Amino acid sequence: MIIIGEKINGAIPSTAKAIAAKDSEYIKSLAIKQAEAGADFIDVCASVDDAIELETMKWLIDIVQDATDVPIAVDSPNVHTCVESMKYCNKPGLFNSVSLEGDKIDFAFPAIADTKWECVALLNSDKGIPKTAKDRSDVFTDLMAKVKEYQIDPSRMHIDPLIEMLCTSEEGISMVTEVIRGIKEQYPTIHVTGAVSNISFNLPARKIVNQAFAVLAMNAGMDSFILDPLNQDLMGMLFATEALLGEDDYCMEYIGAYREGIFGQKK
Amino acid sequence: MIIIGEKINGAIPSTAKAIAAKDSEYIKSLAIKQAEAGADFIDVCASVDDAIELETMKWLIDIVQDATDVPIAVDSPNVHTCVESMKYCNKPGLFNSVSLEGDKIDFAFPAIADTKWECVALLNSDKGIPKTAKDRSDVFTDLMAKVKEYQIDPSRMHIDPLIEMLCTSEEGISMVTEVIRGIKEQYPTIHVTGAVSNISFNLPARKIVNQAFAVLAMNAGMDSFILDPLNQDLMGMLFATEALLGEDDYCMEYIGAYREGIFGQKK
Repeated sequence: MIIIGEKINGAIPSTAKAIAAKDSEYIKSLAIKQAEAGADFIDVCASVDDAIELETMKWLIDIVQDATDVPIAVDSPNVHTCVESMKYCNKPGLFNSVSLEGDKIDFAFPAIADTKWECVALLNSDKGIPKTAKDRSDVFTDLMAKVKEYQIDPSRMHIDPLIEMLCTSEEGISMVTEVIRGIKEQYPTIHVTGAVSNISFNLPARKIVNQAFAVLAMNAGMDSFILDPLNQDLMGMLFATEALLGEDDYCMEYIGAYREGIFGQKK
Repeated sequence: MIIIGEKINGAIPSTAKAIAAKDSEYIKSLAIKQAEAGADFIDVCASVDDAIELETMKWLIDIVQDATDVPIAVDSPNVHTCVESMKYCNKPGLFNSVSLEGDKIDFAFPAIADTKWECVALLNSDKGIPKTAKDRSDVFTDLMAKVKEYQIDPSRMHIDPLIEMLCTSEEGISMVTEVIRGIKEQYPTIHVTGAVSNISFNLPARKIVNQAFAVLAMNAGMDSFILDPLNQDLMGMLFATEALLGEDDYCMEYIGAYREGIFGQKK
């Protein structure tokens, strides 16, 4: 189970405010809290104007690296920003993200091929977001041809099958769980990732939907989660699900995480 | 989704105290609250000495029937108590429970065969609780032979595959989900039930384990739940899971239950 802490993202109003105010203490505290809560990567996404995106990424990455040893996920819709941001990192992290849109992959993969960087890849292409499991799996097949071409081991890839909002669905999440199962069957060592909270857009009591979704997605094979690691209920749900799925003998990991205060007892 | 409200049970200390003190107002409030929270059956289990079990059942059932129209689940380890208690009920309810132990079934099934009563059946026998999915499925096969013999429609049966504590397991819940899937494949209209909280015995933060288990059990086919319907987080998890599993178009049921205050907003 891999946790990608999502809180240092300029799309979150409180973080955007801290970025605008150059409030390094606030960013530092987000880094430290997420590290303590068990994040395996700390996502850094500036979400600012293009003109200042790179300098903002450097400022954020420097703060996070000063505060914790947890590797960084360089996060931007602009693949060039991600490639440049890699240079600010003092150790390999997570490239977030590529997709089959345009020349993203042919720009990104040369930069990470001979490194230990891992990489998030979204299953969309120039045709947009595929509507069916078949079309999404076809994008995955094209993606993996590129992964092979650049000799990147599948275990370094985090495939994001694209989690869409539940409220407009008539079939629930059956399409996305089918895609996840297909990916893991073909490449057992690959990671399947996603932003858990996308599922609950426009619904009340979103946290409940997010938690139930995380359980079902993990059951289908998702093993990498872009989420708020300070959300104790959600973190607890992931540890409980690992135990229920037989991946945690005698619940030792679950009990250990509880004792560390990762869930169930507010620090 | 069928909710069997578990709170009127003498095994719960606060309920035992109310039973001992003949505190009818307390029992009445448990009945009303569970009915308002969406219980489809209100379980009544005396858990007192044999000598006073029947009179206690009658006292409890009378209170519940005065308070609400929700049908009653007559609950006792003693099948004779269940059969006698049926007579106190003013409408068909749920017989809780039979198993293949001794002559339980041959005593209980004649009493319910030609009625509209539904019936919980546990998958244990005189040999105890079967250890493997195969053995448990064999008990199910024997049970269904009896169901057929007494011409009880499978849709009136709630099969309890026996949920055991997770903390002593090395395979998680894979055995019980396999049993659940097998039951539903053979009899699509049958119900699979269980006491959700059994899963988390001896673990910390039990509610989290119960919730994650409910999601996975529902995914496997469980559709009847013996639980505390006042536990809003758990109830919300069930509604969210129905939506995620594609059983709730556009989340209308989920949103309706939220609006009714069944979860997400304390009354």
